[in-house]
Amino acid sequence: MWGDPNAVALTHLGLHTLQHRGQEGAGIVGFDGHTLRRHRGFGLVSQVFADPADLTALTGSAALGHVRYATAGGKVLENVQPLLFRFSDGPVALAHNGNLTNAVSLRAELEANGAIFQSTSDTECLMHLIRRSHAGDFTAQLKAALNQVHGGFAFALLTPSGLYAAVDPHGFRPLVIGTLASGGVVVASETAALTAVGATLTHELAPGELAVITDAGIAVSAYTTQTELAICSMEYIYFARPDSVIHGVNIHQARVRMGERLAAEQPAAGDIVVGVPNSSLSAAMGYARASGIPYEMGLVKSQYVARTFIQPTQDLRERSVRLKLSAISSVVARKRVILVDDSLVRGTTAIQLVRLLKDAGAAAVHLRIASPPLRFPCFYGIDIQTTAELMAANHTVADMKELLGVASLAFLSTAGLEQAVGLTTTAPHGGLCVAYFTGEYPTPLDDYEVAYRAELATLHPDVNVHA
Amino acid sequence: MWGDPNAVALTHLGLHTLQHRGQEGAGIVGFDGHTLRRHRGFGLVSQVFADPADLTALTGSAALGHVRYATAGGKVLENVQPLLFRFSDGPVALAHNGNLTNAVSLRAELEANGAIFQSTSDTECLMHLIRRSHAGDFTAQLKAALNQVHGGFAFALLTPSGLYAAVDPHGFRPLVIGTLASGGVVVASETAALTAVGATLTHELAPGELAVITDAGIAVSAYTTQTELAICSMEYIYFARPDSVIHGVNIHQARVRMGERLAAEQPAAGDIVVGVPNSSLSAAMGYARASGIPYEMGLVKSQYVARTFIQPTQDLRERSVRLKLSAISSVVARKRVILVDDSLVRGTTAIQLVRLLKDAGAAAVHLRIASPPLRFPCFYGIDIQTTAELMAANHTVADMKELLGVASLAFLSTAGLEQAVGLTTTAPHGGLCVAYFTGEYPTPLDDYEVAYRAELATLHPDVNVHA
Amino acid sequence: MWGDPNAVALTHLGLHTLQHRGQEGAGIVGFDGHTLRRHRGFGLVSQVFADPADLTALTGSAALGHVRYATAGGKVLENVQPLLFRFSDGPVALAHNGNLTNAVSLRAELEANGAIFQSTSDTECLMHLIRRSHAGDFTAQLKAALNQVHGGFAFALLTPSGLYAAVDPHGFRPLVIGTLASGGVVVASETAALTAVGATLTHELAPGELAVITDAGIAVSAYTTQTELAICSMEYIYFARPDSVIHGVNIHQARVRMGERLAAEQPAAGDIVVGVPNSSLSAAMGYARASGIPYEMGLVKSQYVARTFIQPTQDLRERSVRLKLSAISSVVARKRVILVDDSLVRGTTAIQLVRLLKDAGAAAVHLRIASPPLRFPCFYGIDIQTTAELMAANHTVADMKELLGVASLAFLSTAGLEQAVGLTTTAPHGGLCVAYFTGEYPTPLDDYEVAYRAELATLHPDVNVHA
Amino acid sequence: MWGDPNAVALTHLGLHTLQHRGQEGAGIVGFDGHTLRRHRGFGLVSQVFADPADLTALTGSAALGHVRYATAGGKVLENVQPLLFRFSDGPVALAHNGNLTNAVSLRAELEANGAIFQSTSDTECLMHLIRRSHAGDFTAQLKAALNQVHGGFAFALLTPSGLYAAVDPHGFRPLVIGTLASGGVVVASETAALTAVGATLTHELAPGELAVITDAGIAVSAYTTQTELAICSMEYIYFARPDSVIHGVNIHQARVRMGERLAAEQPAAGDIVVGVPNSSLSAAMGYARASGIPYEMGLVKSQYVARTFIQPTQDLRERSVRLKLSAISSVVARKRVILVDDSLVRGTTAIQLVRLLKDAGAAAVHLRIASPPLRFPCFYGIDIQTTAELMAANHTVADMKELLGVASLAFLSTAGLEQAVGLTTTAPHGGLCVAYFTGEYPTPLDDYEVAYRAELATLHPDVNVHA
Repeated sequence: MWGDPNAVALTHLGLHTLQHRGQEGAGIVGFDGHTLRRHRGFGLVSQVFADPADLTALTGSAALGHVRYATAGGKVLENVQPLLFRFSDGPVALAHNGNLTNAVSLRAELEANGAIFQSTSDTECLMHLIRRSHAGDFTAQLKAALNQVHGGFAFALLTPSGLYAAVDPHGFRPLVIGTLASGGVVVASETAALTAVGATLTHELAPGELAVITDAGIAVSAYTTQTELAICSMEYIYFARPDSVIHGVNIHQARVRMGERLAAEQPAAGDIVVGVPNSSLSAAMGYARASGIPYEMGLVKSQYVARTFIQPTQDLRERSVRLKLSAISSVVARKRVILVDDSLVRGTTAIQLVRLLKDAGAAAVHLRIASPPLRFPCFYGIDIQTTAELMAANHTVADMKELLGVASLAFLSTAGLEQAVGLTTTAPHGGLCVAYFTGEYPTPLDDYEVAYRAELATLHPDVNVHA
Repeated sequence: MWGDPNAVALTHLGLHTLQHRGQEGAGIVGFDGHTLRRHRGFGLVSQVFADPADLTALTGSAALGHVRYATAGGKVLENVQPLLFRFSDGPVALAHNGNLTNAVSLRAELEANGAIFQSTSDTECLMHLIRRSHAGDFTAQLKAALNQVHGGFAFALLTPSGLYAAVDPHGFRPLVIGTLASGGVVVASETAALTAVGATLTHELAPGELAVITDAGIAVSAYTTQTELAICSMEYIYFARPDSVIHGVNIHQARVRMGERLAAEQPAAGDIVVGVPNSSLSAAMGYARASGIPYEMGLVKSQYVARTFIQPTQDLRERSVRLKLSAISSVVARKRVILVDDSLVRGTTAIQLVRLLKDAGAAAVHLRIASPPLRFPCFYGIDIQTTAELMAANHTVADMKELLGVASLAFLSTAGLEQAVGLTTTAPHGGLCVAYFTGEYPTPLDDYEVAYRAELATLHPDVNVHA
Repeated sequence: MWGDPNAVALTHLGLHTLQHRGQEGAGIVGFDGHTLRRHRGFGLVSQVFADPADLTALTGSAALGHVRYATAGGKVLENVQPLLFRFSDGPVALAHNGNLTNAVSLRAELEANGAIFQSTSDTECLMHLIRRSHAGDFTAQLKAALNQVHGGFAFALLTPSGLYAAVDPHGFRPLVIGTLASGGVVVASETAALTAVGATLTHELAPGELAVITDAGIAVSAYTTQTELAICSMEYIYFARPDSVIHGVNIHQARVRMGERLAAEQPAAGDIVVGVPNSSLSAAMGYARASGIPYEMGLVKSQYVARTFIQPTQDLRERSVRLKLSAISSVVARKRVILVDDSLVRGTTAIQLVRLLKDAGAAAVHLRIASPPLRFPCFYGIDIQTTAELMAANHTVADMKELLGVASLAFLSTAGLEQAVGLTTTAPHGGLCVAYFTGEYPTPLDDYEVAYRAELATLHPDVNVHA
Repeated sequence: MWGDPNAVALTHLGLHTLQHRGQEGAGIVGFDGHTLRRHRGFGLVSQVFADPADLTALTGSAALGHVRYATAGGKVLENVQPLLFRFSDGPVALAHNGNLTNAVSLRAELEANGAIFQSTSDTECLMHLIRRSHAGDFTAQLKAALNQVHGGFAFALLTPSGLYAAVDPHGFRPLVIGTLASGGVVVASETAALTAVGATLTHELAPGELAVITDAGIAVSAYTTQTELAICSMEYIYFARPDSVIHGVNIHQARVRMGERLAAEQPAAGDIVVGVPNSSLSAAMGYARASGIPYEMGLVKSQYVARTFIQPTQDLRERSVRLKLSAISSVVARKRVILVDDSLVRGTTAIQLVRLLKDAGAAAVHLRIASPPLRFPCFYGIDIQTTAELMAANHTVADMKELLGVASLAFLSTAGLEQAVGLTTTAPHGGLCVAYFTGEYPTPLDDYEVAYRAELATLHPDVNVHA
């Protein structure tokens, strides 16, 4: 946020709104007119800012906030963002969403030239590249640096002079700009945060764009022309909030259409449609509408986080897991339940849910997944970096049906997913990255390539990695 | 819980399941074969037992847990239950759900005879009455004491010899007994807790019953014959979990029927039906079904608790409140929304929601409340003790419609509520206490009577208090 | 403290001054003009009041503070004083220094009559006795209660009407009254606390006296005439601060005289006199003066509390213990050291010190103890309740010399102690209780008598317990 | 510490022993055979390692610990040492005692070449210099770097290969090496830490020396030949522990000699000699011996740290300060007290002490300071960086006498100090740095020179700064 007297308080609200994007840590840097001050910590925003004094200490007219969702870098405080650098020519704060594919080789090269890293996060590379650039001003140095990092990223930087925001050349990760009645400018990952702070959407960053926001206004320019939209399809499937809009498409409605499309592609002989709360309710509603089978509240999610501990017996361990969700017996008893889930990752939750429904008396469970089978890792910022954890990467659909104990199991097709999202673009796959489903990566894999090819040769000998 | 080696761990799970019944504090007393040990504190179960060591220190074969929902007594640790008394003839733990109407006069009388109270909670009276009883054994002393306390209550006591559970002569507050495969016995406020620990419902305490659970088994007897069922209707309307069953009626389904009945009694010219998440989704579903108007997900509830602080501006204060709920603009824009809420207490949340929907583009909002107008205080354990806070006690429906800014406003009738719940009983009002809607109290008001009559004379000069 | 606008802040200072009298817990009750408020906790005053808000919440014109030194009652918060009772006729706070000999039998009798205790501390008995007294006013009820409790005690009670302070009929525990320039009145265990708050000593409570301090002034009266001074000699030996004055005798100077007397009674062939810091420096100085042997700083005490943990090896365990004290090698090397300690309890510290001095090169260590051998338990408030822990109760002087590894070992005589203190009184033993040295108890032992006689029969078959 | 299985536990003991050298923060880095792990925090060692788990997590055969005494760098966790750097070729930990005079210019130059600093501490410069050195191995790079930093320093570095320790070319700050029975090697600021861990002193680092400790043994070499001993005289005056030995001189005995010398130079007509506990007791003892005037315990220091808060009145503020020290009235009353203090910095404590003694009845106070007047700042690691705070830099002795309210005031001479310490050396000022007394600095002042000359021109127009 830039140019609003309540920048820190509004950023705090915005972080709460985007809490679903990362729960491992949080931080806010505020600009008080003189310098940048930071508070950060592990845990949820409400835990990190449990003491109001930590927030009020940051008051200022500009702020940069971050919630941490770990894909790379260990769990040490140094890695919790925004990173904050104090130079003799002024401080710079840096926040990052995404994953760089060439971070390891960049770091090795920088270190060989005397660079000292303070975090193990890939994010820090950008700052070293900026400081070692001989380009003219900060914007020019930043553009030079952005052209050296590869992968999926949305970067935001705050200095006493301005706020800088950039997305990678494929736009893997979303970034929107809004304006406030006060004249202030907000940059955020999702429109829900704009709504939360009362801002109006004015621009969505296109692949390869850099926005420079200063007291002189918003200047958007391209730092590269080699671009092609491939936004992460998981944003639409489960990651983003239902009330957000990305590239003109409301998330809830995209999910309803995924459910409708799934019903058309994969009908099931059920009595009721039940969604997994809360992320799959939209898709379940779509399935129910398209199939004409009644939508029912067969599962209830607890509104409280139950903190449970290492339990002495297997029975207690299972009961602890179930505290989060419970079945309404009088709804599901003696019914053939069509259970709709947004995605199938490891399968552990699905196994629990199927057992829960059967214990509550369900006659049969037909599992319908409103996305294609996840078979390949993501290198652009979703925490699926090893296929060993993916149920669909290691089993056939028939096998999974047995493992899950369901009467039938079916997935949405990749084409169906692309149509359900329905972006207006000529880019491949309707502008979506569907690499986790197909193995077709929009970019070279850089530092990950060797290990990935080795893993692939074992798991999917039939697939060719993107060259 | 009595007679299971994991009694403490299971009680901990049970408290998580019943967290919705009280968030002010929590505590567990465990019986380790020799003595009773306790851990208690302010806040949620997950906060009170944040340190696993506090739980493991309590290991034993019997346990008593409590979550605090304050209706009487100040916010001091002494009042957080279970209360624990150490006598030279052994310890006794005591937990209470409800509110006593004659606590003040009982306490005054006891003190005049030298009693020293350690809490300001009305619960403690019971223990003094037990200790001063000259009846034969502990069960007899307890029965004598139960006949001296008035109001709505469910008591549970734990001693090294047994677990004791009793409900008041009108059964205002629910209490169920379940058995485990291990032979252990569980007593809980709701069946959801039985499900959570894997117990099967074996008995629901009838008004005026006392259950004595020892190693010899479960013995249920009546401590009075002057009984008549008048269970709190708020349990069905919003207090209990949707997956619980009270007196044979599933809560979710009762709420669906309240919605259906409301649609029949109070139709509305709307395009979509939207429920207030999460408590009113059942009623909204019922309203949609009965009216044939589509049920839509127009409001989204955040799954994270946002901790916000005293905000410097009115705008920030309002934005903070809205973090909890947000509207999906693409769903509600240009639609006439029928907003279904389970009840209308102060009206402050409803005002926010209506504004939220209108800001998101709703053409109109028709508010439908799936319960009758709340006009009178509760003296039996629901925290509505002064009518000054009740919107419907101070305004006509027409006035409220204006204050809320809705196109129309309507409530479910008391008769409709009674039929929707549908208990099998010949007791008045279908076995429900509907005093908050009608002013007809099933018992004398004892210590509250004078103040209540005075308040009533001002607010509702037309109503006669129960004599 | 009564009648000063800064009563709470001054009480806080006073508790810091008296921190040496108890480190297990602390608490303050403040009277804000309406009611009594309390904050208490485990640990040092600085830990219990680590958050300034806890102190400022207590602001008022009267206050009662306490530091806990546990002799009876378990380590539960309920036992941390002041105890606070809320009655319908107003609150009462209660603090106690000492130990009651008939607490167990009093409690049993009270419970049999329906009393419910909230702590396991013997202190609470007094309040039950007060509340059950049928005497006229509070002062009369308190006097009646004081006549029912036996042992060594100094009680202070605070009500909205006044501050009450009383000592037992033998004056085992000290209590002084001072007045402030503001007109406020302070009661404290030692004069050092009066000095700390700027008060002037106006009265020292005589055995069997009760002081009632109200806005009308200070009224001192006797609640019994059966009195005889027998103040705890350990107060002079090591318990009280060197800058305090008890019954007209300065503690530091009494200790110097104990050292002088010890030098006369038990000379030693040494080169330097070294005291154990800090409690034995006065006695060592006295020994050096009387003997003419140079006083040297051979041992240094760390000014920081080293928190060490369970150590993996015996060597590390010993090193951890030594962090507290260290020897100055260049001072003690090749010297015959006369080590002066104030008392010898278990002997564990003495063993460490002797080894420390020898490791630093001392040629020999002559240990001189500035008090008689501790052979009997104390039942009046010093935490020596079992003789099994006392080195001198289980070994001869010759044996102890071997165990401690010293060249010689000698103690001050009881007569020498009495003369060194030098109270102006005709009471036996110069007005001191010397029971731990001689086994002659000034009072019946009540509830302790049977167990004590049994222990004694084994350890000291030659001694007759006081009949 | 290098090469002992209990390296971390012993380092922890050592830090406790050296706690007096820094109380702002503490940290330990342990080498577990694979990598370096760190725990650090603000406060005392006992606070930073309050949780034993934080210590046991560091177990290993080598360790580096540090207590922070802030002279430069803000109070942010990043500045708490040891600093820990993780390079692709392995980790390095770095700890520093002292102050660099050219840190600002070094940092500016490094930043201009792309360096990113993670702390604001001057210590970090050394690591950047090492990493940018093109010398052969780590030892060669370290030597190159040591030749680029100026000022007073003792550095210790830990890598998986070895422990490195170096002192500056004037030996401003002490560093000793000891060996354990286990074969382990310890490096510490003071010999007291060697004693605490059971090590024997084997070498004291001479100016300009670097010790490299590996599994192959201890290799000491000079990294420069331009050396001249000028050890900080404040180490002897008050900083080091009385039981430590620096360059062959025991601290306690050096202080006794300062007191003796002071008595000879500055006699006083007093009845008793009283030292300020605890740091000035040695000097007071020396003064008493040389003058023949009795040494008395007139002041008592509390063994507990009193945590006091912002007090509402001036009277309460003064009383809070006095909690730390109190006078024994019966010792000082009607006596002419010769009060001996080790040094006079701001004078605030001295003013309090004089008032305390007079309030306790002292007839007169003669203040004797066992070191010369502090008139100039220190740039080598003692936290006296501005003369504005130094009483003697701003007032004549006559003025100070009035301000302090003493009967007479006198200081030890610089020559007296040098003789009292008595180092065996031909270096100027007997091998001591006496710059704070004389303004003669052993090195150029580098980055401090301009500001210092400006300050000096105002305060001491008569003095020439070292050219």
